Amino acid sequence: MAKLTARTPKGMRDFLPADMIKRQYVFGVIREVFESFGFEPIDTPVLELRENLMSGNYGEDAEKLIYYAQHPGAKEELALRYDLTVPLSRFFAAHENDLSLPFRRYHIAPVWRGDRPQKGRFREFYQCDADIVGVRHMGADAEVMNVVYTVLKRLGFADFTIKYNNRKLLLGIGAYSGVPENRLPFLYRTIDKTDKIGLEGVTEELRKEGLAEETVQRLVNLLVVEDGDASKRLALLGQLREEMDGIDIAQQGLEELEQLTRSADALGLLGNTAMDFTMVRGLGYYTGPIFETFITKPENLGAVQGGGRYDELIGLFRGQSLPTTGISFGIERILELMDILNLYPASIGSTVVQALVTLFSDDLQTDALKLAMELREAGIRTETYMDARKGIGKQIGYADSKRIPIVVIAGQDELKAGQVRLKRLADGHEESVNRRELGSAARRLLNLA
Amino acid sequence: MAKLTARTPKGMRDFLPADMIKRQYVFGVIREVFESFGFEPIDTPVLELRENLMSGNYGEDAEKLIYYAQHPGAKEELALRYDLTVPLSRFFAAHENDLSLPFRRYHIAPVWRGDRPQKGRFREFYQCDADIVGVRHMGADAEVMNVVYTVLKRLGFADFTIKYNNRKLLLGIGAYSGVPENRLPFLYRTIDKTDKIGLEGVTEELRKEGLAEETVQRLVNLLVVEDGDASKRLALLGQLREEMDGIDIAQQGLEELEQLTRSADALGLLGNTAMDFTMVRGLGYYTGPIFETFITKPENLGAVQGGGRYDELIGLFRGQSLPTTGISFGIERILELMDILNLYPASIGSTVVQALVTLFSDDLQTDALKLAMELREAGIRTETYMDARKGIGKQIGYADSKRIPIVVIAGQDELKAGQVRLKRLADGHEESVNRRELGSAARRLLNLA
Repeated sequence: MAKLTARTPKGMRDFLPADMIKRQYVFGVIREVFESFGFEPIDTPVLELRENLMSGNYGEDAEKLIYYAQHPGAKEELALRYDLTVPLSRFFAAHENDLSLPFRRYHIAPVWRGDRPQKGRFREFYQCDADIVGVRHMGADAEVMNVVYTVLKRLGFADFTIKYNNRKLLLGIGAYSGVPENRLPFLYRTIDKTDKIGLEGVTEELRKEGLAEETVQRLVNLLVVEDGDASKRLALLGQLREEMDGIDIAQQGLEELEQLTRSADALGLLGNTAMDFTMVRGLGYYTGPIFETFITKPENLGAVQGGGRYDELIGLFRGQSLPTTGISFGIERILELMDILNLYPASIGSTVVQALVTLFSDDLQTDALKLAMELREAGIRTETYMDARKGIGKQIGYADSKRIPIVVIAGQDELKAGQVRLKRLADGHEESVNRRELGSAARRLLNLA
Repeated sequence: MAKLTARTPKGMRDFLPADMIKRQYVFGVIREVFESFGFEPIDTPVLELRENLMSGNYGEDAEKLIYYAQHPGAKEELALRYDLTVPLSRFFAAHENDLSLPFRRYHIAPVWRGDRPQKGRFREFYQCDADIVGVRHMGADAEVMNVVYTVLKRLGFADFTIKYNNRKLLLGIGAYSGVPENRLPFLYRTIDKTDKIGLEGVTEELRKEGLAEETVQRLVNLLVVEDGDASKRLALLGQLREEMDGIDIAQQGLEELEQLTRSADALGLLGNTAMDFTMVRGLGYYTGPIFETFITKPENLGAVQGGGRYDELIGLFRGQSLPTTGISFGIERILELMDILNLYPASIGSTVVQALVTLFSDDLQTDALKLAMELREAGIRTETYMDARKGIGKQIGYADSKRIPIVVIAGQDELKAGQVRLKRLADGHEESVNRRELGSAARRLLNLA
């Protein structure tokens, strides 16, 4: 037999109980919010036909990151899914007859990318997507923005900004600027760097590229962030309408931004949003509103969400496009930030266990199992210790090391007298209770309602 | 661009919302029970180092079913996990210093096997395991038996039998029978067929093999199923103790069966169990008690759970064995049976959505978004319809086709008067309520507390 190594593949992780408890909590909150907005769960296989992932949908650089898979005895060439969007497109085409439009779905699942592993970047990681298929109206975009807001608030994030912009406006800006078509990708890449190099840096780069000074100024004047109230945002959009009069695509983008701003205002979201014309995201993918959310305090902690409207991609497999808008949480980053900002509720500990039933001697084993069942029936997650050779002191030490909040102690004499002893480890509080009251007493000690 | 095909790889499935809602319900119940017994969640990567799965741990036939995976630019040869037990063994060795013993873990996750797909058998399917590592005492085996009982009861299964036996007793029977060592695998395979071919069939096969008539009779007399009360089971075990006097391994097995029977009795499980000496399971894997659970009514619907004690396997990666016992649910089969036996509660429908807010005209979009938020705040999962070009009749038709229980209707006049209309689709019941009472009225119509 070959020597076995206990390590995981590079860039892939085991999750210990303390990790999983946090992950389940965060996934649970997100799932609950998604469902409260009427998004339905779906799942697709981890493996897809390789040709479906390798036909240019992701671009050449991304295709290099895809993991191959194959069963040695089978002909199908497979690959591990790279994201949840192409699978959604395939899923939708396969099941269109069983789905009604509009179709709201969410999908929380792992994806694989053979990236160079580094801090916070893994080769196996979860994605967490919610999309609305089949709605052209900006109400859908306001709704997914509201989902982002509600998830982050529910998780306890206080200070965050949902930035929004519009791809049609960006296209309009390109047309308006007079930058030659073949330089437009350069233009957008440069604009996208504004948050890193500032407007001055952008100005400089545009000049270096040889753009006329007038063009540069005209462009830079448009790269505004407006996070004031609705009237300020609408006034700015009005100005731009005049300025870019006659540029159809720009007018459409501005109209979408107006509608989205009004809806976000009505929903009370504006305070956590900013209209940001420097935000670019996925060129050649998004077709309307785009979103990106940053945690802003105690400092800029980076993006935790991206998304937008992509009316073409869902049509990939069915051969006809469909309006679609959605968001994706950077769930691994959110999990990190929950720790950094200490946002987990006190009930989220390093163990699921709330009570440990100790064991005095082997002949009391079935009594201990029964006490545990009584606690479970009272809704308390309970472990039984099963090795009486370890003394009660050691058993309490085990509970302590695992941070189990309470232990139940019941020796022969106590059981005969119909009594059990409860000890809360955090403060050493101890009491004897009638066995019939075990469940309610334990709930009281755990501060459960 | 290559032609895209919307199909999944062979033997792998998409899950539509109606499937996922059922799966989430069943997984949720199982998770809740596992945690109530103090089992902690873990997860491991989908991909493992290939050498760890291909070094004889599963046997030659199983290795043929393993899917290979690899990133074209990386040296690591990987494979998709085949089960959750070898990953547990690897996990335990990798994290032993961060875990306390005893260690109770559960793991609910997909595995891959390149089996020939057929009805109810898939190449990607979920496993659902709970194990206790580090406890030698039969209390642990009684506890996992209790987990099986509690899960099945909680899911609504009324008629099932948890069969139990003991590998040590089976080894003892082999020694006692006088069958030559090299014929023992044949002996166990034959015993294992009892439920298919009956005792007569077994007798015949043993005779055909050329065993002495006395040996055959001695063997067949031992192949008993006892599902009576504890005293009957203990009496039978007492008889066998005398009969197999001097065969150490048999005596150990009988002692374990006595302890397990007593604990199961104390926990009130006996009525759903049977001590079954014809049950064999995984030769060369289990080392003590073994379990297998069958749904028994309206007819024998097959096994939904397997498990037992396997004291060697967890030591695979750490080089030293550890007592371990556990159970695994045949979760895909359980999901099928939930449908066949109609066990899903009424609240489990084909959609998560409980209310649809309709839209009269585009200018009421933000009002509709706000009404939906009010419903969500009242704990009602709510979708908003966003295309006013479809009339209210069509929107109600959409709700009906998706089986959304109630729709909210609010035209300009109603909103001005501070009113909204609610319609319950199942019985056509309709009422107008003050907008401030929308949430409570909707909860009443949905029969929520």
